[in-house]
Formats: sequence, structure tokens, C-alpha cells
Amino acid sequence: MSTKAADAKKIKGQVFLPGAVHWLVVSVAINLGLLLKLIHDRNLLLEWSSLPDKENGTHLSSLSSYPPEPKPANDGQIQQKLINLDHGDPTMYQSYWKQMGDRTTVVISGWQSVSYFSDTKNLCWFLEPGFANAVTRLHNLVGNAETENRHIVVGTGSTQLFQAVLYALCPSDAPEPMNIVSAAPYYSSYPLITECLKSGLYKWRGDANDFDKEEPYIELVTYPNNPDGEIREAVFNGNGGILVHDLAYYWPQYTPISSRADHDIMLFTLSKSTGHAGMRLGWALVKDEAIARKMVKFIEISSIGVSKDSQVRAAKILDVISDTYEDTETSDESKRFFDYGYQEMAKRWTQLREAANKGQSFSLPNLPVGECNFSNRTFGTQPAFAWLKCEKADDCESFLKKHKILTRGGAYFGSSKKYVRASLIGHLEDYNEFIRRLSLINSTESP
Amino acid sequence: MSTKAADAKKIKGQVFLPGAVHWLVVSVAINLGLLLKLIHDRNLLLEWSSLPDKENGTHLSSLSSYPPEPKPANDGQIQQKLINLDHGDPTMYQSYWKQMGDRTTVVISGWQSVSYFSDTKNLCWFLEPGFANAVTRLHNLVGNAETENRHIVVGTGSTQLFQAVLYALCPSDAPEPMNIVSAAPYYSSYPLITECLKSGLYKWRGDANDFDKEEPYIELVTYPNNPDGEIREAVFNGNGGILVHDLAYYWPQYTPISSRADHDIMLFTLSKSTGHAGMRLGWALVKDEAIARKMVKFIEISSIGVSKDSQVRAAKILDVISDTYEDTETSDESKRFFDYGYQEMAKRWTQLREAANKGQSFSLPNLPVGECNFSNRTFGTQPAFAWLKCEKADDCESFLKKHKILTRGGAYFGSSKKYVRASLIGHLEDYNEFIRRLSLINSTESP
Repeated sequence: MSTKAADAKKIKGQVFLPGAVHWLVVSVAINLGLLLKLIHDRNLLLEWSSLPDKENGTHLSSLSSYPPEPKPANDGQIQQKLINLDHGDPTMYQSYWKQMGDRTTVVISGWQSVSYFSDTKNLCWFLEPGFANAVTRLHNLVGNAETENRHIVVGTGSTQLFQAVLYALCPSDAPEPMNIVSAAPYYSSYPLITECLKSGLYKWRGDANDFDKEEPYIELVTYPNNPDGEIREAVFNGNGGILVHDLAYYWPQYTPISSRADHDIMLFTLSKSTGHAGMRLGWALVKDEAIARKMVKFIEISSIGVSKDSQVRAAKILDVISDTYEDTETSDESKRFFDYGYQEMAKRWTQLREAANKGQSFSLPNLPVGECNFSNRTFGTQPAFAWLKCEKADDCESFLKKHKILTRGGAYFGSSKKYVRASLIGHLEDYNEFIRRLSLINSTESP
Repeated sequence: MSTKAADAKKIKGQVFLPGAVHWLVVSVAINLGLLLKLIHDRNLLLEWSSLPDKENGTHLSSLSSYPPEPKPANDGQIQQKLINLDHGDPTMYQSYWKQMGDRTTVVISGWQSVSYFSDTKNLCWFLEPGFANAVTRLHNLVGNAETENRHIVVGTGSTQLFQAVLYALCPSDAPEPMNIVSAAPYYSSYPLITECLKSGLYKWRGDANDFDKEEPYIELVTYPNNPDGEIREAVFNGNGGILVHDLAYYWPQYTPISSRADHDIMLFTLSKSTGHAGMRLGWALVKDEAIARKMVKFIEISSIGVSKDSQVRAAKILDVISDTYEDTETSDESKRFFDYGYQEMAKRWTQLREAANKGQSFSLPNLPVGECNFSNRTFGTQPAFAWLKCEKADDCESFLKKHKILTRGGAYFGSSKKYVRASLIGHLEDYNEFIRRLSLINSTESP
């Protein structure tokens, strides 16, 4: 077994390395700058794949089996680099946080975060009080969600909170599993998570528009919607069912803040608000105490709480964002987080629409324009993802893959294969290359 | 709804506060030292409860509904303080980490941990390389587990890894759910986690000794065992089934390291090795690549990885432990983590056995003595928990609760109510008070 495992490791290494060695030989011969770029590219190239995982019927295949290393062409020319826009890795924000220098640095001593407990007086006993305060302060500043008379429940990303909500809302003694629905196109992880363990508590029933409402149900409402950025209300308005609002993208860099959201259960995540995906931190604002209590119980059973280190860091980061708006000396907009994010998203969407409009190959959704109560700007929703339609190709994901652009196909979102979701919040150089290729395809493809 | 929620909050506040206010009034009148002690007591008192949760049939009830605030007795005398030994909160180790000063302090900048990805070349793409290295280095130093030709999978505590293992080992297309068994007394969280979502992939079948092996099964082996510290082999030795080894307590402060464990799937957790429960970090050493890959997939689906901040901190802490053993200048044993832990556990077990031997009310298991390859000491297993038997009372948990000692009753572990599990790794003052009461009960209770 040990020898077999060693062999497997060697084989794994070979899958990754030979191509890279060739690249190095070629590129060192060109110049050092190209070498550094290639190292970076190789990292990106090995990120999450959009290939369907045959074994599990999901789009999330394991990294080290995919993607195949690009081989140098026969003539020794370097091939086109692979651009991975499949997942929403929010690395766009990293340059903002670098620019903020030491303001958001935290120092944690070895004797901290020893106990399971953060605040035994709180229903959510693993919630760090500093993080709870920072969350409340930021919502009050932005005006995007009601925090009065709400319980804050912290989770290992909003992904864990979604599972906690399902556990809390689905009775364990019901004769049939609860129906979970969401209007298509819906976030591709909802069905994955819901079906993962074949739970007897709930089952995925797909598009809310196809559901007949004769049985109990939970409707998931993502606002603005992932993948298409649509501003949507619940299909059923809650009649006979329960609504869960995923507000991961209800922040002023993405969409006008039109009112203070005031739903029963609202989910937020750090990865899309501040761009700190690696912290794995989300929070829920929950009206009903019994529901919040059951969510806490789920997180207790499934992970005995949530990393205190990440909560401590997140508290600092959220507080610094609030500080830059309350500090009258910060008049430079680029120093204020949501303004920075808004400007960056606006620039990227302008470039994207320009590229899409250059020909007949692609189209993008028209998104609503509104006034933002936070920034007083009037602007159209500029989502973290492009919901791109291939007007000529029937399988847009495969079509773009030929051009070495990885995206997530529409079928994962309960929609047509003519659509893909492409992340717009990655590193600038990848974004620019994406736009360059899109323009090129649009201007050269036959109609 | 908002008003109702506000009322609920007020009521919740009242459940917690009035008693404390009385306490304060009384105790301020006595002296400031007592006041400070009471504040501390109140915190402990509000920690995890051992009361069965009627709604969910678990022992883990939510904090804010329990425990009831101790009321001042009618004559104004202060009642006995509640000692909570129900959960294994490893606060004993905090004083060691304080003594280490800045050596384990980490500094994390705001622009770090932005991406979901830690190491895209690794099968476990959310595993921080520094943490992986520190884990390998420590295992090699201690000699408690084979790391060669193993995949390291990081999890949000070993709790999440246990779920990842179940997901990885149970085929999604099997006609019947996989049977999950463990020899009683078994860790009380195993049935809770296994049954939590009524999964169609697996079902809890209880004591391995009662299982007939006619269907496929997974046997969980905890070594040394939680709750009773027994050194046990698998009941079935893997014939026709799969073994999962939970080695949370296989560290030299608890038990002699007799050999390098070399099982297919081994689980470890930071909370019991270094005492950092608040980090929520565990790791698995997995021989088979396909199993490791499916575990990674589960963690991807259920939380899109594991906090990078905690991994960065943990790497530092594990490395400092290794440093103190490799650094020849650290000759003071109390400065070396496992020696500190060993001495503290030895002292506590001596006191515990003395208290139990003072009368006929309690008994403790006899645990095997062995030579430790790491420390070269010969000693008996000194577990993190006492598996205490009430020789007179039929319901040991209720009996101790009358003496304001919260423990976890034997029934949760698939055993008799004559037993309880009591944590021995809490704060020193609580431990001392526990021993004092145990001695008192033993010397005053009628036979």
C-alpha cells in the first residue's frame, strides 16, 4: 500500500511537472519577467475546475486531476494561457488591502482562542463579541440590512449557514423531506449542498417556477441573484412556505442599496463583501430566536463553532471599513472600500459590455438602474459574475474552453447551456486577458 | 415580530441577570476578591450544558436556555458554584501558552488569506503548506503516527473530518445506508453527527459488539478511547468493513506512545493536542488517494475549505512545540509542551484517584501502564476525561448535578447511567474545586 501510494504520488507529480519544466526552459531563454509571469499563470491554471465530476455529478472536480497542463506546441511556441473564471475567487480586492498597509493587521498571541467559547451570554456562544459589533456597525453604516432585534449567527462561510438554515427549518419528524426550491438560474451550490448527504430532512426540487406548492417548501432568494445579477423577489412571496434570503452580493460595489433588507433569515459572507474568501466566514441575521437556536445547534454538531482567529481578523477589517467612512479625513475615495470596489466593478463592466458589443457572438443581461442610498450614486447593477450568453454556440462553456477560458456552464444553474457564469472579481491581469480574448472572438468569429 | 423578538431578548436577559445582580450586591459587601471570582464563576456557569435537549434528543442544549441561574438561598447565603465538566474545553493549556510569551504570536496583514486557495498543487488545495509541514514535523518528532505516503486533509476540527470520512467511505449508490459502529462506551458525538441530517448514505448502529456484520460497516476506533481512556483495538479487525482511527488523544501528555500508528485513516485535532479548541482545526492522515480526494470534496461542498488564519496560527504553534524539543538550550522541562502537559495530567490524576479512594462512592477504571517511546517514561494512561462510576447512585449525572457538578451521563456514550464523563483539562481552580467536592462527598455520604 505504501509503495503504491508512493507511486501514485510520483505519477501525480509527473502529471503536473513536465509541462512546467518545458515552460521554464523556453521562458528563461526569453526573459526573467516572463518567467515570473509563468509561475503565476501555473498557479492560476491549477485552480478550481469547471469540468463535471463524473463520479459525483457535480462541476467541482478535484484540483490535482485537472486541468491538464498546457503543452508547448510542436513548434516550441508557448500556447495561450488558461484563464480560470469558474469560481468567484475575490482576489480583485487584494490590491485594496495592500494599499491599506498595516491598518488591518492583527496580532494574535499563542494563548488566545484556546476555549471553544466566545460569549457564553450570547445564544450564539461561539460568536466573538467584537465581530458581532463590527457586523452591526457596518450594516448600520451601509443601510443594507436591518440589525435591530436580530440574532447574529456566525458560520464557516455562508455555505455552512445555508446548511444550518436547512437543519433549523426542516422538522425532523416530518413524513416527507422538505422541498427546497429557487428560481432558475439559481446558485449552483444550492443543489450540490442539499443533495450531498441524501438527507431525509430535505430534498432539492429545482426551479421554484416549476414547483406546484402542494407540499411544504423553502424558497431560496438570492438578491441580487447569482449567477445573473437579477434583482428578484420571491416567486411565491412566502405563501405556505418559508423564505431564506441570500444577500451575499447586496453591497454597494455591486448594486444600488435601495432599502434596508428586513427579511426573517438573511445570509451574508465575508468573501463577497470584503473579499476575504480564505477566512471562511459568514453571518446570518435571524429574527426568530428558535430558528437561530437551531442554527447554532447545527454548527455546534457539525463543527463545534467557528474559527475565532478569523472572527478576530474579520472584526478588524470590518471596523477599518467603517472607520474610513466615519473618519472625515479620508476624503480620497480610493481609500474607502466600497468606493474602491464600486469604481473597479464599474470599470470592469464597461470593458465587458464594450467587448460583448463588438460583434454578434455574445450577449449580456440588461440590469436595472437605481439610486443607491449609501453612495447617492445612480447606477445599474454590476454583479461579481457575468451571465454571458453565446449567441452562436449551443454549449457556451465548451466553446470558451476552446479559447482557454474556464467558466461554469448554464446547466449547473438550472438553465440553458447557451449561458455561462464568468467571475469578474479575479486578478486584474486575468480580467484584462479575458476581455482581450472576448473582443478577439467577437471580431473574428464567423456569424 | 420585531416587538416579540425584543421581548424575547428582554426575557432572555432576565433569565441571566437577576441572580447575578443579587450575587454582586452580596459579594461587593464581602470583598473585591470574591467579586472577581464571581464574575469568573458566572462565565463558567453559562458554558455548555449537559442537559438532554428534548427537541433534538441530544445532550447539547443551547446555552442561553440553560443552566438556570443559581439563586441566593433564602438566608442570603451564597450557594455553591456550578462546576462545568461536561465538555472537554482544554483551558488547562492556556497557562502554558501564556508562559511562552511572544514565541507563538502571529501577525497577519489585511491582504493575506484573500483567496480560497492555499496550494493548488496539493490534492487538498485549501491546506496551507506551512501547516502541513508543521504537522509532519511534529508527528515525526513525537513518533505517534506514520506520515510517509499519506495525504494530509485539513478540516474545521476533527468533527468536520469525521463527516468527510463518512461521505468519502459510503457509496452514494448503495441500496442501504452504511452501518456506522463503535465499541461502547463510544464518543457521544459520533451518533449525534451521524444521525443529524438523517442521511441516506449512513446510519448509526451503536455498539460494535452488538453488530452482526452481515451488512457493510465502518468501525470507529478511538485510541485511547473517549470517554474511558481504554487502549483498545478494533472489535472486528477490519474484516468485511472499514476502520477509521480517531487519534485525538494519542499524544504523550495522555498516554505512552508505544508505536507509530500506521492505519489507513487517522484523525487528529488541535483542541486536544495543543489545547487550541477555538481555532477549530483538525487534520487527517489518509493513505488512499481516492478517499482523501473525496474527503476534500466534502469539505469543499460543505465549507469551501478551512480558515487560513487558523492554519497560519496553528503552524506557528506546532513549530514552536517542535522547536523546544530540538533546541538544546530548552532544558527546563516545564518549557516543553508535552512535558508540561504530562506533569499537569499526572498531578490531576493523582489528586483524582486520591479523592476517589477516600470512600466507597466512586470508582475509576484501571488503565494500562506502558513505556513511552517519546519521553522514555513508564506511566499509566492519564486521559483528558475521567470515566467516573457512582457506586451508590443509579444516575451518576443527576447525583453530581445535585452537588453542582455538571458532567455527561453514561447513556450518551452507549453505556450505563452509573457512569459519567468528567473533563479534567479545564481551568485549575475548577479542577481543584471538583476534587474538593468529590472528597467531601466520598467522606460524608452514607454507604
